[in-house]
Amino acid sequence: MRSFAAMANNYSNSAVRNIGVGLVGFGTVGTGVWETIEKNGSLMTERSQGKFALNVVKAAVRDISKKRIENAPSDLFTSDWNEVVNCQEVEIVVELIGGTTTAFDIVVAALKLGKPVVTGNKALLAERGKELFALSREYKTPIHFEAAVAGGIPVIKAVQDSYIGNEIESMFGIINGTSNYILERMTTGGLAYPEALQEAQELGYAEADPTLDVNGWDAAHKAILLASLAYGFSIDPKEVYVRGIERVRSIDIEFAKGLGYVVKLLSVVKRHENGNIELRTQPSFISKSHILSSVNGVFNAVAIRGDASGDALFYGRGAGKEPTASSVVADLAEACYALEKSGAHRGFLPYSDEGQVMNIDETETPYYVRFDVTDRPGVIAEIANVLANDGIGIAGTHSPNDPENPDKDFVDMVFRLHTCPFGKLKATLKKTMKLDCVNSEPVVFRIENLTA
Amino acid sequence: MRSFAAMANNYSNSAVRNIGVGLVGFGTVGTGVWETIEKNGSLMTERSQGKFALNVVKAAVRDISKKRIENAPSDLFTSDWNEVVNCQEVEIVVELIGGTTTAFDIVVAALKLGKPVVTGNKALLAERGKELFALSREYKTPIHFEAAVAGGIPVIKAVQDSYIGNEIESMFGIINGTSNYILERMTTGGLAYPEALQEAQELGYAEADPTLDVNGWDAAHKAILLASLAYGFSIDPKEVYVRGIERVRSIDIEFAKGLGYVVKLLSVVKRHENGNIELRTQPSFISKSHILSSVNGVFNAVAIRGDASGDALFYGRGAGKEPTASSVVADLAEACYALEKSGAHRGFLPYSDEGQVMNIDETETPYYVRFDVTDRPGVIAEIANVLANDGIGIAGTHSPNDPENPDKDFVDMVFRLHTCPFGKLKATLKKTMKLDCVNSEPVVFRIENLTA
Repeated sequence: MRSFAAMANNYSNSAVRNIGVGLVGFGTVGTGVWETIEKNGSLMTERSQGKFALNVVKAAVRDISKKRIENAPSDLFTSDWNEVVNCQEVEIVVELIGGTTTAFDIVVAALKLGKPVVTGNKALLAERGKELFALSREYKTPIHFEAAVAGGIPVIKAVQDSYIGNEIESMFGIINGTSNYILERMTTGGLAYPEALQEAQELGYAEADPTLDVNGWDAAHKAILLASLAYGFSIDPKEVYVRGIERVRSIDIEFAKGLGYVVKLLSVVKRHENGNIELRTQPSFISKSHILSSVNGVFNAVAIRGDASGDALFYGRGAGKEPTASSVVADLAEACYALEKSGAHRGFLPYSDEGQVMNIDETETPYYVRFDVTDRPGVIAEIANVLANDGIGIAGTHSPNDPENPDKDFVDMVFRLHTCPFGKLKATLKKTMKLDCVNSEPVVFRIENLTA
Repeated sequence: MRSFAAMANNYSNSAVRNIGVGLVGFGTVGTGVWETIEKNGSLMTERSQGKFALNVVKAAVRDISKKRIENAPSDLFTSDWNEVVNCQEVEIVVELIGGTTTAFDIVVAALKLGKPVVTGNKALLAERGKELFALSREYKTPIHFEAAVAGGIPVIKAVQDSYIGNEIESMFGIINGTSNYILERMTTGGLAYPEALQEAQELGYAEADPTLDVNGWDAAHKAILLASLAYGFSIDPKEVYVRGIERVRSIDIEFAKGLGYVVKLLSVVKRHENGNIELRTQPSFISKSHILSSVNGVFNAVAIRGDASGDALFYGRGAGKEPTASSVVADLAEACYALEKSGAHRGFLPYSDEGQVMNIDETETPYYVRFDVTDRPGVIAEIANVLANDGIGIAGTHSPNDPENPDKDFVDMVFRLHTCPFGKLKATLKKTMKLDCVNSEPVVFRIENLTA
């Protein structure tokens, strides 16, 4: 089989170890990986001082007739992923098809053959990481997944390697570019949610089916991975609280602005004194004075606080062909170094069965709650009474004009509430829904204190 | 010898490899390293799944009688660094004494014994890295230096590992916390330079002798390390352009503010089409709309642009006991993993003798130039004529009031100039100094375009 990429001219063939790479999936990111190796493969070999050269030798695709790249050797593509994983020349398997079923089978097959896996599949690792990491240990074969969280930002490596000597106190992440783009356009462009979503789709920032992005689960999967690394135990997604941005309205954003906040889809990972882990993803008010509020458009950022390192922020492109390929290729290099030493993954993985995700009902912040109410006198008093009876303090109320629906009979009524446990708030809000004047489930935003 | 730190209770002694660490220097950072291992050593062992436990077994100090920590074993301290390096139990040597002479000897001695070195000494590596990295290769023994650049921010690892598949197009760094603190206090507190410096000294953000911080060389050393990694060749500090913040005045900061800029001590590393490397450190105007402008106080940040990764920013604490210790301890873990595999450092190092730092005279930006002139009619015309004769375009002139010296006879005259090569500007400014009305060397600020 011929080698098509990454011939390092400065090194003799005998010195350079050619490493065969197999790609399963050759869509946007796969093409990016191919192109990055074509472009910078010899640079990588130079930087490794001739230790390795990457060669993509086999790639599985759904439709083998589709032309994806120039100069592809005729035997590069196959429609059967087994051919990639089992190919003699393939030493590292890159899983890029997404999903949690076939992708799972592919990773299992590669690990059992002792072939290191590189993947950017956050859903797979968040949903079935426990089984896969156990196999990784059993077969002493690493899984690399820098591309799974925050695209081109090396935050997985930071947690695995750079923070190994830190108790990680908290991580705040803006880790879904689609949601962040939509919220920014609602904030600065004055668009309503459906318009902003449509614009994001037209620009390719949101997929035709944007569900996993806008319902918060893409971000939640990433937060689960970060938390399970930071605290060493596998986390069941069912234990995690997730809300997306579908119910965010322009009036929420305007109201936040007036208070000095911006609305972001925020993932919160926080260790409490008792060792419990607060883990949640939801639209949140964050202060304009915090650096995270400057993270706009499709950019991602993760703020990490370690007990030794103090506060740090990792910021960059969270998705896209080249940034994601950049992380995949860095993982390939790491896998090559490990192959050379026949060693396992160096960065740490979840290592423990202990650890407890905090019940979301116990987590506490101040809140912004928007009620959809019938427009008649006494509404504020009725809602305020319910809150007061349950001992929930009101910081302020406001009935914003709704530019989207100026003439409707039911209106929005906003309450800012003092800090209380979320469970208590939920129970009280349920009571408010029994009021005649409250027309639907209130929308809750967290007001986050990022400095605590 | 007893082990005092990092006994991992979850692992049997036979499984955990105890790694003896020797510290040369036990000042602020050394104490931080000791404390971090005491506090989080068993966490590290857990995360490594029992692969290693760190034990500080020997430490060289100047004054052996000074009490530094509780519970130090009586045989921990010595006044002779040779005892640390040669100690049988010491497998990794941490150099924390600073300077470029004795520190050099220590690192050489350790490498020759095959003992990996961890150091945060940017001056040593920038000035004598070429010799040390060559020895590192010869003895197949790694030098780790995350702590040398930007304290607790893992930017060295990012460049060595995460960007291995990227041609790095540019790096913009705010990497001297002392200067950044002083400039911020001048900007938001309205302090004059000497007051801000004094405040920084009182708060411990500036040393009694702040020379290396305020003259730009601390930042320049870090930029040299980043550039030599990114582009693979060792860089002679003599080829590097460096100006500090000593001549920054409140009027410059006010003027920048009016134009939508903030003044930062900025290190610029930029690759040009021809492969030449622009490398310079100086006070610069950067746009308030760029995220780097939000980097305040003693925080550091490095913005990295890779051809695949796109733009990223790494932000965090650039100095201090715990953040620096966090990086030293991460390097210790990396050294442990490498020892286990008897492998060399995995991240890449400068690998080539080729590469060219661009002559500073060829670098181009717009400029802000402040002239100290005698207050009489015709001054603007005289200076403008000199500039015009040399073909340097003027974007605007301004004579700000000087709140520090309202009544003096000579005044400040500011010119904003269009983009031209720095060499041309220097030559022209020399001519202006021959004018009667120009009293001293003009002060030049770069107006940086961080998005180009």
